[in-house]
Amino acid sequence: MDLILSENQYNLVYNSFSFVIASMGAALLFFLLVRNRVAPQHRMALTLSTLVVGIALYHYVRIFGSWNDAFSFTKGQFIQNGKPFNEGYRYVDWLLTVPLLLAELVVVLKLSSAKTRSLLVRLSIAAVAMIALGYPGEISAADSSARTLWAVASTIPFLYILFVLFVELGKSLDRQSGTVKKLVDSLRYIIVVTWGVYPIAYMLPSLIDDQAKAQVARQVMYSLGDVLAKPLFGLLVLGIALAKSREDGYVEAGTSEHHAMGTPEVVGS
Amino acid sequence: MDLILSENQYNLVYNSFSFVIASMGAALLFFLLVRNRVAPQHRMALTLSTLVVGIALYHYVRIFGSWNDAFSFTKGQFIQNGKPFNEGYRYVDWLLTVPLLLAELVVVLKLSSAKTRSLLVRLSIAAVAMIALGYPGEISAADSSARTLWAVASTIPFLYILFVLFVELGKSLDRQSGTVKKLVDSLRYIIVVTWGVYPIAYMLPSLIDDQAKAQVARQVMYSLGDVLAKPLFGLLVLGIALAKSREDGYVEAGTSEHHAMGTPEVVGS
Repeated sequence: MDLILSENQYNLVYNSFSFVIASMGAALLFFLLVRNRVAPQHRMALTLSTLVVGIALYHYVRIFGSWNDAFSFTKGQFIQNGKPFNEGYRYVDWLLTVPLLLAELVVVLKLSSAKTRSLLVRLSIAAVAMIALGYPGEISAADSSARTLWAVASTIPFLYILFVLFVELGKSLDRQSGTVKKLVDSLRYIIVVTWGVYPIAYMLPSLIDDQAKAQVARQVMYSLGDVLAKPLFGLLVLGIALAKSREDGYVEAGTSEHHAMGTPEVVGS
Repeated sequence: MDLILSENQYNLVYNSFSFVIASMGAALLFFLLVRNRVAPQHRMALTLSTLVVGIALYHYVRIFGSWNDAFSFTKGQFIQNGKPFNEGYRYVDWLLTVPLLLAELVVVLKLSSAKTRSLLVRLSIAAVAMIALGYPGEISAADSSARTLWAVASTIPFLYILFVLFVELGKSLDRQSGTVKKLVDSLRYIIVVTWGVYPIAYMLPSLIDDQAKAQVARQVMYSLGDVLAKPLFGLLVLGIALAKSREDGYVEAGTSEHHAMGTPEVVGS
């Protein structure tokens, strides 16, 4: 059955996708430009944030194109009768970006290398399992029990990730400074809140009878979730990296002291 | 005969190609961003990794476009009746990237310059021969004996490459540290395993009767093989370059000591 959207419904999704493209592009540029403000030993987390928004930028350009190709404009309505809209891009995106997002959080804390490796391996496997188990449900029919079953299966690794972040990682936070601890707390709550948006968006086709409304709401929520979970998350990780750089006494090369009695302290560059 | 793919079959290949584009792009960005973490004397291998993923990024954008143009969406199915899908991109890609991949491994070891030159020349010739001999078979009919004959011819230089890497190179590894030796071992096994994916993918049209399934499985396997053989291989080469940088006492410019008694150790760059 071809989905029929009003001009406003179609444009709301269209403009949401474009908003995400602009946000990811701006975040990519920003993370590249502020790179030198972070001490070299804390830059890896920023590098991962940069990759995440770059990968998401690419996928939203594709999603935007796929949305465009899926509809034709006839008699004031947008009718989905072109190539099928490809929901797969999101899952390919998450397959790459979710392990990287979790790695950002782990890497920026600078735990022991054994602890870091163990956390990275377990969180990556759980993230890949969560996304791989979600996909079969996403492409199932709206009212099918398959949709619900895969959703439940996908929730198990999600709960494991939350357990690792809140219980296991909590114990490793004792050696961090107050500023860093507060930022890590915010990061963990962003994960709970924004990652909580996705399951709601996922279940919408089963909850709302009007499939046009369900599709519009789902795409807008996924878009919003991605902006919170990627650029905003990256900004908080940057905040941690900057706090840790300051604690290590890092000064960006070439920085002149503001109140250095007239003689700028020039560091060779 | 026109190939007919279901929506899911078509999308699986489509999304695999898109996944490779995102992976190559992310790897390109990553290799550029971490460049300064490697000592200048060990950067050439990283430079080669950067070229490899850049070349592959370009070719997968072309392959993706070629796949798109080859099919039309009619009555819920994808029918291959457009421009022929161009398998040649892969071979042009491999012609450039396989000698570079082998060069990554040789260059990062920092053997004597006579040994390095000799290995580079012989491995490059063998790599080019392997790919040039494979191509006539790839474009032969699925059930032809030509396909098998060229496959056998292409295997001879492949075996020579394995001989050089495992027997000849093995003797040169004695002077390397334990960490480096372990990483080189992993690299050689990645070559055996991932390069082993290609011949299987190559033979699929002769092994599977359903040519739609054979085409889908072949493209997915080639894509997976390329992600393992290029970005993952590059990450291990980076690991060797980083281990060697550390062994040489290299510290990235600007790195501040954690416990430097409040005085930042600013290193000019």
